[in-house]
Amino acid sequence: MRILISNDDGIQSPGLRALVEALRDYGELWVIAPDREQSAVGHAITLSEPIRLFPWTMEGVDHVYAISGTPADCVKLAITELMPEKPDMVLSGVNRGENTGISVIYSGTVSAATEGTINDIPSVAVSLGSFTSTRFEPAAEVARRVVDLVIARGLPADTLLNVNVPDLPLERLKGFRATRQGRARFQETFIKRADPRGKIYYWMDGAKVPLQETETDSAALHEGYVTITPIRLDFTHHEFLPELRRWPLELHAEAKA
Amino acid sequence: MRILISNDDGIQSPGLRALVEALRDYGELWVIAPDREQSAVGHAITLSEPIRLFPWTMEGVDHVYAISGTPADCVKLAITELMPEKPDMVLSGVNRGENTGISVIYSGTVSAATEGTINDIPSVAVSLGSFTSTRFEPAAEVARRVVDLVIARGLPADTLLNVNVPDLPLERLKGFRATRQGRARFQETFIKRADPRGKIYYWMDGAKVPLQETETDSAALHEGYVTITPIRLDFTHHEFLPELRRWPLELHAEAKA
Repeated sequence: MRILISNDDGIQSPGLRALVEALRDYGELWVIAPDREQSAVGHAITLSEPIRLFPWTMEGVDHVYAISGTPADCVKLAITELMPEKPDMVLSGVNRGENTGISVIYSGTVSAATEGTINDIPSVAVSLGSFTSTRFEPAAEVARRVVDLVIARGLPADTLLNVNVPDLPLERLKGFRATRQGRARFQETFIKRADPRGKIYYWMDGAKVPLQETETDSAALHEGYVTITPIRLDFTHHEFLPELRRWPLELHAEAKA
Repeated sequence: MRILISNDDGIQSPGLRALVEALRDYGELWVIAPDREQSAVGHAITLSEPIRLFPWTMEGVDHVYAISGTPADCVKLAITELMPEKPDMVLSGVNRGENTGISVIYSGTVSAATEGTINDIPSVAVSLGSFTSTRFEPAAEVARRVVDLVIARGLPADTLLNVNVPDLPLERLKGFRATRQGRARFQETFIKRADPRGKIYYWMDGAKVPLQETETDSAALHEGYVTITPIRLDFTHHEFLPELRRWPLELHAEAKA
């Protein structure tokens, strides 16, 4: 079995290291990750600049590269150029900080798994529900068990698993919950400053807006459950399509609604 | 009425200009766009660097700013900091090049509209189905008509409209089609080079993989129809959730499947 591991915190992240340790016995590991942190890059790809490749070393792993690009770049370059054959699975993480609710669309961690899914490879993103903790081992162990299940069961087409793990010791995790993506979002604030030459700039900051939700990723995570959310790459609002088709969508008729 | 217009091709793009011209009579226009091209940035936001603000001028528009950030940054900064009140609508485009199929997840154009939707503002992304054409006026006129419909009908929660317009004169457009997001994707190629010091780098390139699809955005666009695809921000694969819940998702039991 050949597993590709990437992330968005960068090649030196302890979360990546924990994932590698947990999956060491599963076969041939390829670690291809950004050379620096790439958080909140969304599903960015690098078209306007060259992408640099840095051979790297990581104890006990044969194939390790750092890349001057985004998580999506890593998986694209790995699959298209660096690996002799497609991997059997793509794993992304363990991310520092949860990727739940609207954060999913900003997440570089999820985007690496998305690239695997686009290439028809079963893919899983794993995040730890804390921005400050260094306790990545329980999340890596959870990832190992999810990998076992994905090997046994497979995944539907165009679908990845987005896993979030509370920052708790393994024995205190309450269990798995298959959840939907919540609506929890950040409320941004911008800190306005002037540089030494008087020119204005801003720092983006923000805080999660608490929502009273049930059965969502963020709600279950904060109750102490490991959440598994299936993410589908078809973003169409299918239920709204029939109504949209009843709109007076006429380009050339004189009479408009 | 107060309309926020952004894009990912940058403040100087003729597609942005065409959209401004088409909507000039609709009320107060705010144009807040990246100071340079930001294509394929996905839903990136800028957290690790300051965001610079450049007051700009555009004939006949009172409020124009260029920003050293992504399309998502533009809409966040506009709504949170620059505009005295939330806009009534967010428009993004007219993008140079179609945003259909899997391209939707890489699209900075769509991400600007997504930010509007996250903020509960009706939002529309508009793209022209050509990377080389300068004929943006038909697409801008189409955008105007879609704006009329959205004003009259509203949009469901968490839903934006992704509009793609063939590169044809207005009178040759075949009409509107409400479509689903297709699976059309790019097959990347990487061009490998060495710099003058012998270090390896890559350029990402790619070509769209033709798919035999019907009723999708890309299929209808290439038949000459204006496509409107409703995009929902809940990416959960809801239909797969019941099956996922039947997986042996046990953290602490001894017996695993």
